[in-house]
Parts: sequence; structure tokens; C-alpha cells
Amino acid sequence: MQKSIAFLNGAFMPIEEAKVPILDRGFYFGDGVYDVVMAFNHKPFALDDHLDRFAYSTREMELSCPYGRDELARLIAEGLSQVEGDELMVYFQLTRGAAPRRHLFPDKGTPGTFVMTVRPHAFDARLYREGLRSKLFDDMRWGRCDIKTLNLIPNTYCMQKAAEAGCDDAIFVKDGYVTECASSTMYIVQGGVLRTHPLTHAILPGTTRKHILQLAHELSIPVEERAFTVEELLSADEALSSNVAQRPTPVVSVDGHVIADGKMGPVTRALQRAYHARVVAACGPTYFDAHIDG
Amino acid sequence: MQKSIAFLNGAFMPIEEAKVPILDRGFYFGDGVYDVVMAFNHKPFALDDHLDRFAYSTREMELSCPYGRDELARLIAEGLSQVEGDELMVYFQLTRGAAPRRHLFPDKGTPGTFVMTVRPHAFDARLYREGLRSKLFDDMRWGRCDIKTLNLIPNTYCMQKAAEAGCDDAIFVKDGYVTECASSTMYIVQGGVLRTHPLTHAILPGTTRKHILQLAHELSIPVEERAFTVEELLSADEALSSNVAQRPTPVVSVDGHVIADGKMGPVTRALQRAYHARVVAACGPTYFDAHIDG
Repeated sequence: MQKSIAFLNGAFMPIEEAKVPILDRGFYFGDGVYDVVMAFNHKPFALDDHLDRFAYSTREMELSCPYGRDELARLIAEGLSQVEGDELMVYFQLTRGAAPRRHLFPDKGTPGTFVMTVRPHAFDARLYREGLRSKLFDDMRWGRCDIKTLNLIPNTYCMQKAAEAGCDDAIFVKDGYVTECASSTMYIVQGGVLRTHPLTHAILPGTTRKHILQLAHELSIPVEERAFTVEELLSADEALSSNVAQRPTPVVSVDGHVIADGKMGPVTRALQRAYHARVVAACGPTYFDAHIDG
Repeated sequence: MQKSIAFLNGAFMPIEEAKVPILDRGFYFGDGVYDVVMAFNHKPFALDDHLDRFAYSTREMELSCPYGRDELARLIAEGLSQVEGDELMVYFQLTRGAAPRRHLFPDKGTPGTFVMTVRPHAFDARLYREGLRSKLFDDMRWGRCDIKTLNLIPNTYCMQKAAEAGCDDAIFVKDGYVTECASSTMYIVQGGVLRTHPLTHAILPGTTRKHILQLAHELSIPVEERAFTVEELLSADEALSSNVAQRPTPVVSVDGHVIADGKMGPVTRALQRAYHARVVAACGPTYFDAHIDG
């Protein structure tokens, strides 16, 4: 068992040894897509959702993946089998391959570059319980945020600026409306209703978002897929965000303004429990159970 | 003398042998900036403009270049001395370096990755004379197009779609106004006035644009730095675009609509001649002189 591993050009190797040509269009143009799957007890969670989304990203960007869906699932399983840890993060990325730098796509038949890494994920249990302090940013991203591409400068830059301001996360605002966070979906609860931005080109179709909305339905929590304003966020009963790595997590302050009483609210707590139960049902009990108080 | 060369990690090497870790943030996030200099007779043209812009891009993205301005100039000269050809393209790129993938910037002291390539440029004399057939695209790029970053999916994708439609270039349109092209500055001439988008966050500050506007002044051609609409483009007396590789080049049709008489106009021709004279004054006579009729 390894501490972590990479897969590139058909072979597993240490992450630090995996190298790509500078001619790869990922390196020149960020011309590629990716996805991230969490695995508990070496079992991937919601793998089909991620393979669906990866296929969507690949199709929208007109990329050609050297591996079919079943092969991807096998590669992920093989990678997971080689790495130790209760909670692992599987990252996989496909670029348009290596070719002399020019804007036009490479000649037909140029193989795409597929790379995967499997490594332990350090879950932040404190943030999960105590919540995120978030900072607002003008959403300057491009027009197809529904595709999970490698063009991530605004995401990384704003996350860094949030951290420098003593915050944990960056929330994007477009024309007065919250779209999503730098790497997660944003929600509010107001009058018992869970609200989040609808699936448009402005946000990523979060896999955890899908589960959260399903779970809300199961818990008889009304859902509105309708964008909300900054004012509605600041005056919400609860605010939360979700992604595969951090699960549903409360957002307790925004630009220093405390949301409600600054603590996790009952809807967020119910969603945390229900989501965790879904993970356990799929992957078995995890070390993480200790963090679920309920 | 080589046919082409790369510089990476402090050493020159064949381009095909230059490789970077998959952990490089250029490969994961497109987290870097670049610039391109043309050289004629092994002399770089307008090097100071490019070093200024590279410094601007680097500063805006808060990157740290391992080489100072003078060292960059020396590296470029050294690269040029090793490659044969009358017209060479120098590409250089700086990323935030290699670090475990996460949005936050790497730890202080993580060296940025600097890579440079020098290779022959195949100038397209036919397009230079006969003009570009261009296609309009909704400008879906992010909000800081003034920074020359590696987040270039919209540029590459639209250029490819233009080619698939039988066109030579992609023109971006935002809210009815032309911003620029996928890799060049866009201009029109109407009533003897040269118009182009002002320098805002919506366009790259083209180095060739700067020379064109200076030359227009010298030629007593009035200049308006004011955005123009698609309608104004289609009804213009002349349309042209410019970048370092293609110089000022006529745009003779847009979405199949022929601009004026579909031939190079007198202002474009005057700018071609004047720009060429500036290149010759800086770098000496070139093979390219044969393409200048006048």
C-alpha cells in the first residue's frame, strides 16, 4: 500500500514522478476537464454521478478520453486498492493532449492526456461543525461554469484572497445574485425553505448538490432552485455550502456579517446527518461517524 | 543551430524533451501567464513592450518570476542564438509552480515554473494580403482579459469553431460590442477614423495595438479608442486585426458578410507598410519585405 499514487500514460507511479510534456494543452491553455470522487473504506461514493459529469464535461469540450466508462471505474478501483487511508480523494483529469502550441485543436488522432491521483483527504471536522467564514467576490468567471474545466484562475485566486482576509471560502456574486462558491454549491434556508441557484451555465452541477436536494425531498424540506441575492444571504435563517470533500457545511459569516446566530442551524444539521447516512449506506461506517452528533 | 529549442529549469533542451510535474499549477489550474515575442534576423521586436506586459501579468496574478527583466532579455537572446530561421517566435510562460493540488496558493518560497520555447514562425502571406474571414462569437471569457493568462479555453475553442465554419479567426462580441479577437486586436475604419476598443479589463493590451495607434498618429489617421458595435463592423469602410505574429491584417468578411469591397483598404495598407518599416528599422530587412507592395 502506498501513501498516494498517480496514474499517467497507462501506468501507476509516485505522484512526484508523474510528468507531462510542456506541449500538453493542459499546461498551455488549461484545455481540459476534471472530476473528483471521494472514497470511504476504499469504496468510491456516488461514482456514477461523477462519471456522468465527467462524460458531460468531456463531451461539451469535445475531448476524447482514452478510457471508456467501465475502464475508468476499473482504474479508480485499482488506484484505490493501492493507497492506504479511510478517506481518499480520487482526482482525474483529461486534457486535449500534447501538440505544438496553437489555438486550433490538434490533428485528429492526437491522444488526450489522462491523469489520475489518489491521495488521503484531510477532512476538516472543525469547519464541518463550526462553519465557514466566507467572503464575497464579484463572479468574474467565464460563461460556462457548468463544465468542470481546468480554467480555474478566478477560483484559486479568490480562495487565496479569502484566506488572506481570514476567511475559509469565497462566494461568487453576479449581478447581485449569489451563484456558487469557489469550489462548492451555496444554499440558504429561509422560512424553512432550502434555496440554491438553478442549474444553468453559471454554476457547476454539484454531485453533492444533487444528493442534498434529494435528501431535502426525503426530509420534507421544501426546495427552491432559484437564485438569491446577497441581501437574502445575509438575512437568511441558515446558510450552507457543499462539495464532495467538505459535505454540507454551515456558512456562519459572510464578509464579517454573522448569519443568524452564527451557529449551525437545524436544516443544515439534518442534511449533514442524512448525507452521512447515505455515505455510510454506500461505503460502510467511517472514522467520520464520530463527528456526527445525532 | 537547432530547428527549435526549449528552456526549462535553467537549461536549454529539445522542446519534445521538456516535461513538467503533473503537480504544476499550470497543468491543474492554468495558473500562470505568458507572452510571445517575434524575432526577425534573430533580433526580438519590441522586446520592452513584451517584458512590460509580462511584468504586468505577473504582478496582477501575484506570481513570482525566478528571472529579473535583464535575465529574461538575456535568456531570450540566448535562445534566439541557438535556433535557425529569419522569423522566430519566442514563447515564455510562468506558472505558480508545483505543489499538491489545492486552490490556495502554494507555500511561500515555492518556485514558479518558467518555460520558454523558440521556434520558427510560418507567416501566412496570403492572409496578410487577402484578409481574414472571421466569425462572431459571444464573448464568454472571464473578467480580466487584460491579463495574459493561461486560462484560454474560450479562445482556443472559438478559434476551432471558426475554422470548422471555414473561417480564419474568431471575433468576440459582448453586449453587442466587439471586444477583440481570439488572439488579436480588432479595429475598424469608418470615415477615415481608426476605431478600436479602449484598454479596459475586457481586452488584452496588445503590443502591436500600441504600435498601430502610434503609427496612425504619425500618419495623421485619427484614432478613436471607443468600442464599436457589430453593425458598425459590418458597415465599416475597412476592418482589420493585429497581433505580433500576423501584424496588421485586413478582415474581409464577418459571418459571411463581406466588409466593403472585400479587399484590403487604404488605411490598412498604410498601417501594414508603416508597421513593416518599424520592424525593418529595428531588426533589419527581412525575407518578408517581398510581401510589402509599396
